[in-house]
Amino acid sequence: MKAGSLNKSEITISEYIFHRILQLGIKSVFGVPGDFNLRFLEHIYDVKELNWIGCCNELNAAYAADAYGKTSGKMGVLLTTYGVGELSALNGVAGAYTEFAPMLHLVGTSALKFKRDPRTLNLHHLAGHRHTWKKSDHYVYEKVAENFSVDSASLEDDPEEACEMVDRVILSVWRNSRPGYIFLPCDMAEMKVDVARLSIPIKLEYEFNTHADKANVYVEKILAMMYKSKNMSIIADEFIRKFRMEDEMHAMLKKLDGKVNLYSTMFSKGLVDEEDPRFVGTYFGKYESPVAKIIESSDLVLHLGKFDNEMNCGHFTFNLDQDKLVEFNPQYMQIGKEFDETVNMMQILPLLVEKLDGQKISPAVKYERPKKLYELDEAPREYSLTEVDLVKSLNKNIRPNDVLIVETCSFLFAVPDIKFRNAKVILQGYWASIGYALPATLGASLALSDFNLPGRVITIEGDGSAQMSLQELSSMLRYNIDATMLILNNSGYTIERAITGPYSSYNDINADWQWGDMLKCFGDLKQEKSETFKVQNPAELDKSLGSENYANGKFKLLELILPMFDVPEKLTNAVSSSS
Amino acid sequence: MKAGSLNKSEITISEYIFHRILQLGIKSVFGVPGDFNLRFLEHIYDVKELNWIGCCNELNAAYAADAYGKTSGKMGVLLTTYGVGELSALNGVAGAYTEFAPMLHLVGTSALKFKRDPRTLNLHHLAGHRHTWKKSDHYVYEKVAENFSVDSASLEDDPEEACEMVDRVILSVWRNSRPGYIFLPCDMAEMKVDVARLSIPIKLEYEFNTHADKANVYVEKILAMMYKSKNMSIIADEFIRKFRMEDEMHAMLKKLDGKVNLYSTMFSKGLVDEEDPRFVGTYFGKYESPVAKIIESSDLVLHLGKFDNEMNCGHFTFNLDQDKLVEFNPQYMQIGKEFDETVNMMQILPLLVEKLDGQKISPAVKYERPKKLYELDEAPREYSLTEVDLVKSLNKNIRPNDVLIVETCSFLFAVPDIKFRNAKVILQGYWASIGYALPATLGASLALSDFNLPGRVITIEGDGSAQMSLQELSSMLRYNIDATMLILNNSGYTIERAITGPYSSYNDINADWQWGDMLKCFGDLKQEKSETFKVQNPAELDKSLGSENYANGKFKLLELILPMFDVPEKLTNAVSSSS
Repeated sequence: MKAGSLNKSEITISEYIFHRILQLGIKSVFGVPGDFNLRFLEHIYDVKELNWIGCCNELNAAYAADAYGKTSGKMGVLLTTYGVGELSALNGVAGAYTEFAPMLHLVGTSALKFKRDPRTLNLHHLAGHRHTWKKSDHYVYEKVAENFSVDSASLEDDPEEACEMVDRVILSVWRNSRPGYIFLPCDMAEMKVDVARLSIPIKLEYEFNTHADKANVYVEKILAMMYKSKNMSIIADEFIRKFRMEDEMHAMLKKLDGKVNLYSTMFSKGLVDEEDPRFVGTYFGKYESPVAKIIESSDLVLHLGKFDNEMNCGHFTFNLDQDKLVEFNPQYMQIGKEFDETVNMMQILPLLVEKLDGQKISPAVKYERPKKLYELDEAPREYSLTEVDLVKSLNKNIRPNDVLIVETCSFLFAVPDIKFRNAKVILQGYWASIGYALPATLGASLALSDFNLPGRVITIEGDGSAQMSLQELSSMLRYNIDATMLILNNSGYTIERAITGPYSSYNDINADWQWGDMLKCFGDLKQEKSETFKVQNPAELDKSLGSENYANGKFKLLELILPMFDVPEKLTNAVSSSS
Repeated sequence: MKAGSLNKSEITISEYIFHRILQLGIKSVFGVPGDFNLRFLEHIYDVKELNWIGCCNELNAAYAADAYGKTSGKMGVLLTTYGVGELSALNGVAGAYTEFAPMLHLVGTSALKFKRDPRTLNLHHLAGHRHTWKKSDHYVYEKVAENFSVDSASLEDDPEEACEMVDRVILSVWRNSRPGYIFLPCDMAEMKVDVARLSIPIKLEYEFNTHADKANVYVEKILAMMYKSKNMSIIADEFIRKFRMEDEMHAMLKKLDGKVNLYSTMFSKGLVDEEDPRFVGTYFGKYESPVAKIIESSDLVLHLGKFDNEMNCGHFTFNLDQDKLVEFNPQYMQIGKEFDETVNMMQILPLLVEKLDGQKISPAVKYERPKKLYELDEAPREYSLTEVDLVKSLNKNIRPNDVLIVETCSFLFAVPDIKFRNAKVILQGYWASIGYALPATLGASLALSDFNLPGRVITIEGDGSAQMSLQELSSMLRYNIDATMLILNNSGYTIERAITGPYSSYNDINADWQWGDMLKCFGDLKQEKSETFKVQNPAELDKSLGSENYANGKFKLLELILPMFDVPEKLTNAVSSSS
């Protein structure tokens, strides 16, 4: 959309914001209407290519926007109302902040005239003051949000300043891959701004504070280490994806020409092709000890896009010699013991790729790829269907470009055992808020279609987790989502049973839910938009996941009947070693 | 429970907390388990009389706890897990803070050993630091919670101090009728404390900082005004209930012996019997102008338990002469133009009642009670069922002691038109977070049974609102709740359509939900625990609400088919006058 096509010299600030969003290629805005954002929201219709995705509640909308941002690489957009809406979404925003999901959170707030009114006017949605007779702080939520966002703009009545702030926040969100807020007072939604600004798109690029000379010194150091190495390993970690450095990484791998060993982490599964002959495995610390043993014997490890968190780093059991390690992070570089937060991987990696001479690299030792759980001989079957069967079936049926969303449920611990062939995993295992995966399915699916990306969305969801955000299944029908969701019906919080209180009633749920009827109940009486299957054994699972009829445009819900205490081996190990 | 019955000298701090809760008469603890609270939660089984009410998500649990506190007058107890859980609940906690609902929020946090560890350990559920290499603030959520709570205790490893803090927070919650937090690190859940403390129950009483002499000066002033008045009015407002002064108020009314005119507010409906001959009406400012005209002509108004907020005060259209007004507030007294925050109604009201000589009061003018909407002649029917019919049917069928929960939906504006005969209204019209009423039904119902209170719970819920918290219907089955819930099926956010965008798609919802099948879908296949009725006309409504079969112990869901734009007259008026 070009500003010229608007045929007017002024537009509302609301329309301005929506145009800026569309200019990024984004077409879906998630949220819930509320009386403080209605006038803002009215102007979404001024930007015809944008779609309002009305979610059932704000937390679900935040999860959907998070997954939209993670899948598209651009950002997810969330729109909520003052107080009640933005606080409901806060857990989802804090999750996006923690997990580096780019998210623009638009909030319609109380009117500027009330913010400036010295009287005590106890407006609805405005949190009460400690003293009943004093004026409440209209900015209390903005202060709370500072803890979970990289930038924010509280718009007032200066049109030019408002536009500048909007542009700045959008750029901050993109650069930091984390949430930023725009607060628009409800009486400012129609403020007129100059349309001409829109003719210059926001330039999405990283900014570096360090002179190239200094960066090049580091590049030379790293190259020297690489040229000296006889057994180099590369960990392709998730910040490569989150900070959009896949192309640079793949260019480097191409120059290295199969001479170094490759690893993924739990969060980055799919970033390197696991059928690559140099792929050794998923580094998950001591919980995947055959892999750990190999990588920890390297004489140099380049940890590209290091995402340091408990779940991604095998519960803090990564054990690499700091002298033989180079960490590429979006906020720092660490070369051996030398740490520098004034440079980062976005600056270093392209320079490194440019200067790298692949001829000078010595081939690393070749190892036999350690066998994974699913490749081992089968133990005698005690149950008709287990999570191991699910790993095996996914390995047969996941295709390149697929997006596999895995809930923070027991099955999360099976992710390292799944073989990814350029498919992508989306999970929230660091923030680890159960209930994420179901609405994330909505967001990821819309991101694929908005950005014309290939692949399908397949979601693994626990039954306890699904309870948290159930109603968003309704949106799958409303917005014609064709994803597949596997509900692990194992009668409660199985991941928690593994940790504490296996038989404690607090780990029970109402286990009588009729998953087979749920989508009918949400309105698809004739199953025109959805299909539901109960899956009780591996053959049924393969049949459903591998069906020819897969791409029929319908949402598929597979209910997997699993034993109450069936959990992946790695969860058992993690629990037994931490207690 | 007496400490002696424990037969041991030490118990865990977890058990201590649960005993303190039980000592208040509370028997239900609402929440969701999570790995940081599991060890805490294990000890709920040490206190056999306490029941764990596992909710589907934390926001719903917060709403349920809020309504439990509002209904019982003691407090609601909420238990969540670190970060993900407590933030999910935050909107509900902020609502309780804003609306003065007593709530004790227990949070299982990260381990004390990790809080004290100087290393950067990016634990799950711990919000990331702005800088990826720095240690996150383990107390970030505690700081956020300060905005929405009156007191908090972050327990550490000193047993005696921990017990003191627990007792202090519980007392603060009760005294301020607002949320307080107890944060228990997961590795402290088994810390041993002295059981002897439990033998002295926490003394629930208000504390006054002002000497009785000073208070008595005010009492004399008020009495002088009362004895002089020829046309006195009393507004019985909601803080009377929230600060447990009903008995004192009724004692005063008894002494006044029918000589003054009585009013309720929207939030306090039911606090005075609306069949009392002196009851004039619900003061709702200019939106109920016949009532406003009468009260505003009084020569003295005692505003007992004034709860000053937009919805309760007719959108700031209360228009009383400050010189002829005495405001009784839990945090201040205002007598004419004299304001003093060092005294409050809990101190003044009992003294006033004690000293009042009813003989000296002149009878106020008697007015004919203004007719209410539902008493007016019926207009020709355009639709088979409207919200006016609902008002009429409730008036026929609400009984004394009933608890009527009204969602922040279009029907909220009809509350002033409902006649209350010592029934109680529970709403959240100030904080106004839609989705409240459904889980509140769970909390209110359990409060009635835990405290052996008479009456039934009847809930009015909008369909757009019900979407927000739908899954908690499942808990009605799990915990055998026998409430009645009326779903207003009007295809979307009708209250918002009245404000902005009547035909805008963002005010639509997926309107195809099969309400009649919802409870079956949540597991009550044979309708052993629930009944569902579709209601399309006033006769069906009366039949359902007035059924002989009402008290059969089942949860009842009535789906009312209503026109999309049908709203109470007062909502139309409020919107047209504010735009």
